[in-house]
Amino acid sequence: MNGAQALLRTLVSAGVDVCFANPGTSEMHFVAALDDVPRMRGVLTLFEGVATGAADGYARMAGRPAATLLHLGPGLANGLANLHNARRGHAPVLNVVGDHARSHKRLDAPLESDVDALAGAVSGWVRRSMSPADVAADAAEAVAQATRVGVATLVLPADVSWEDGAAPADPVPVRPAPQVPSSVVADVAAVLASGEPAVLLLGGEVVACEAGLLAAGRVAAGTGARLLAETFPARMVRGAGLPDLAKLPYPPEVALAALSGTRHLVLAGASAPVHFFAYPGVPGTPVPEDCAVHVLAATGEDGVAAVQALAELAAPGARPALLEPARPQLPSGELTPRRVSAVLGALMPERAVVVDEVITSGVGLAELTAGAPRHDWLALTGGAIGDGLPMAVGAAVACPDRPVLALQADGSAMYTLQALWTMAREQLDVTVVVYDNGSYAILQGELSRVGASAGGERAGQLLDLGGPALDFVALAGGMGVPATRATTAEELADQLRAAFAEPGPHLVHAVLPGRR
Amino acid sequence: MNGAQALLRTLVSAGVDVCFANPGTSEMHFVAALDDVPRMRGVLTLFEGVATGAADGYARMAGRPAATLLHLGPGLANGLANLHNARRGHAPVLNVVGDHARSHKRLDAPLESDVDALAGAVSGWVRRSMSPADVAADAAEAVAQATRVGVATLVLPADVSWEDGAAPADPVPVRPAPQVPSSVVADVAAVLASGEPAVLLLGGEVVACEAGLLAAGRVAAGTGARLLAETFPARMVRGAGLPDLAKLPYPPEVALAALSGTRHLVLAGASAPVHFFAYPGVPGTPVPEDCAVHVLAATGEDGVAAVQALAELAAPGARPALLEPARPQLPSGELTPRRVSAVLGALMPERAVVVDEVITSGVGLAELTAGAPRHDWLALTGGAIGDGLPMAVGAAVACPDRPVLALQADGSAMYTLQALWTMAREQLDVTVVVYDNGSYAILQGELSRVGASAGGERAGQLLDLGGPALDFVALAGGMGVPATRATTAEELADQLRAAFAEPGPHLVHAVLPGRR
Repeated sequence: MNGAQALLRTLVSAGVDVCFANPGTSEMHFVAALDDVPRMRGVLTLFEGVATGAADGYARMAGRPAATLLHLGPGLANGLANLHNARRGHAPVLNVVGDHARSHKRLDAPLESDVDALAGAVSGWVRRSMSPADVAADAAEAVAQATRVGVATLVLPADVSWEDGAAPADPVPVRPAPQVPSSVVADVAAVLASGEPAVLLLGGEVVACEAGLLAAGRVAAGTGARLLAETFPARMVRGAGLPDLAKLPYPPEVALAALSGTRHLVLAGASAPVHFFAYPGVPGTPVPEDCAVHVLAATGEDGVAAVQALAELAAPGARPALLEPARPQLPSGELTPRRVSAVLGALMPERAVVVDEVITSGVGLAELTAGAPRHDWLALTGGAIGDGLPMAVGAAVACPDRPVLALQADGSAMYTLQALWTMAREQLDVTVVVYDNGSYAILQGELSRVGASAGGERAGQLLDLGGPALDFVALAGGMGVPATRATTAEELADQLRAAFAEPGPHLVHAVLPGRR
Repeated sequence: MNGAQALLRTLVSAGVDVCFANPGTSEMHFVAALDDVPRMRGVLTLFEGVATGAADGYARMAGRPAATLLHLGPGLANGLANLHNARRGHAPVLNVVGDHARSHKRLDAPLESDVDALAGAVSGWVRRSMSPADVAADAAEAVAQATRVGVATLVLPADVSWEDGAAPADPVPVRPAPQVPSSVVADVAAVLASGEPAVLLLGGEVVACEAGLLAAGRVAAGTGARLLAETFPARMVRGAGLPDLAKLPYPPEVALAALSGTRHLVLAGASAPVHFFAYPGVPGTPVPEDCAVHVLAATGEDGVAAVQALAELAAPGARPALLEPARPQLPSGELTPRRVSAVLGALMPERAVVVDEVITSGVGLAELTAGAPRHDWLALTGGAIGDGLPMAVGAAVACPDRPVLALQADGSAMYTLQALWTMAREQLDVTVVVYDNGSYAILQGELSRVGASAGGERAGQLLDLGGPALDFVALAGGMGVPATRATTAEELADQLRAAFAEPGPHLVHAVLPGRR
């Protein structure tokens, strides 16, 4: 058995049975081994950023890592931005990066580069497999490390793949997340009993499951503490029957207002909030100076159990306030961002997985979908735009029985638009809505927010996506995804109904005022 | 004057007056300063790999660096693959990578990442600018370093851009390339005088200018040495009136045959050849074991002068064999790769800049274009596919009075297809020919070359670009580039004539047998 065959067998027996791939010559034995190990599903992507973003979306929904298969340093480089997002969202991803054969490294061939430095910049664990006898154990360790640390990268020399003498390895056990000490829970309960204004900032697993949200809702009902979610949760379960959980807003002035007057900020699975960017004359965080920060559960600890224990202690018998089922009326007239949100709130299918890379166009989106049927919401965790469409690929592979709704801004869509092709090839049930306002609208706001003079024509050209305007119907069609264009709320509703009713991918190009 | 304004003024006075940009919030003051420094041309790209590849193509044709403007670690990451290509081709590129304000670094905001590690992996020089008072001097040094070492990266904190107290700096002088000692030239002349079979392997500047090629032609005529070019020259001048210079072939078995029997390999601006990849049972280089390797001019030395000196010494009075003007007959019938080559050879316009990312489909391409009018040929230097269309952008910006012909394989086109939008926005005179064989054809060959079993259906799926087939006419149209489809040689000829006759970008989707 060669190294690649042993590697694949080890991965599938450790539960990694999907590989998002963009292979090259050094990965050919891995590719050939797919026919020997049919339990591994190979999913071809046309660009590595699609592969890594798909692995991110897959991990968020499946709760376990997929593999990526990348081609040497440049292939890994093309996937780094979405690995950054995965890292920031603590999503487990296992990269297999092919490299030159061991004998070839010293020759400095054209594709030679510092793979290890690139891998180290984004991975919590990196190993270079040194022989066919080691590769299976390396792979088993890589799966365990991905589960522990998020992004794990195994560098796989071509000859380690092709040489014989390998054998599969057993999975490496992974311990469950450590429990939060009861003394910490008691301290937080005492803080909340003080009656001073308090906010529970929820993130990570706490917002990804109903148990976490319901326990947090009990704490809020019993203590008067307010609930907020971190600004960009990797996965948040939402909808009717759950507590109404707003996110800490992105714009610094709004975030400052949201926490104004708060004397105690209790972190449960979330990090202490900081502004996304620095702005001249603005403090770096929205936490008031006289607000004490308490860590109930840090990343990696069992935050759900901690919030449940807090509810038992601080709010015994309290009943959480829960959202009633509610959908907005279908709007009519020319599309605006808010009308798009209303149409989505009115029509969102049951058990949807929503991938949100709307950036500035999500006006009213949280409010108008809050009472929709239960759904999961995946946000852009690391700010590296171009994760939305790839994550939709991965979420759809992880959840073949659920509809995926990818809400995608125009500018960020163009980073990894190749994801559409994989949606078509795999016939994934994804409905993409591209919000086209004809610009990098967020930057138009940021230009003035950072205090830069906003009036210049030449500066404006660098934020404008017109001239030529992008035709997303043509772009989708060119990659095999049926697409339509909506300029009114009625058209959007009709097109979404049709897309939801038919399996496979669809794209709706929603034309907003900035584009018209 | 703020840091960004001083930076831009310093760049333009050092000769860097084009910036390929994909900015974000941290770069807003740089963007705003474009209105203060109109000599700097900002060119917007929709993806960072387009910006860096454009800078690569620009540098190869202009002989001086353009700037890129990239957004923090993830923006740099998206540009790394084409920076790898620039580095391998010794093309000067100056990256300006915006980063968080100095005060914000410790807060570990979502976009925080190890920018310096990413920059170091691909740059010959990296500096983080620490204050507005330093930024202009940093920029002047960065331009000089790019000229010396190739890829240079300046990390620019947002507040260094926005704070006042900066002033422009003077350019830093750069010494010319060092001369090769005359003793080295004499040693090589003595080797060639032995009469033993010798090959001059030419690369770098030697193949980029007529003087280098003509001198090499004299050496060959006077000594009997054979001439070969490196496999992937950054820029090669070709056509009627120049020596016929074949490239060392890519496939290992063909490269071995090309150097078989050679006793002396003289390197002039080229590195010692190695195979692109290792293959089981194949030595790592095509250089015969009994062949001595002599370095006439290393990278960074003045190779043109060295070859000229060698011609004076070893071949006084010799006249080089030069290619007569010759164009193939226009072929007819269904398109094949060879017929595409013949149509190109027949119709290639005067003074074309050819960007070659054809990969496997360039059958007969070198032979059938050898006698065409004088042109420049840019190859993929580092093997990171997705440099072709971006390089065409950069070459067209560098040479607005010359037609650019981008010969682009289908699979690699999809990595950085967003380049088409910039061609349309800037109305660049680029004619793109997409060779569509419906597969990663090179990998189908490599799969068997590395000894992997080639028959598996699941492996084959990962090398196949059908299901759905890509429609490059739709994709180009979606980004504002007029496009047509050719399935016969006659159609291709008609469409190319029309494209060459009209300014601005055009795309021809050449449908090859694998796709039909």
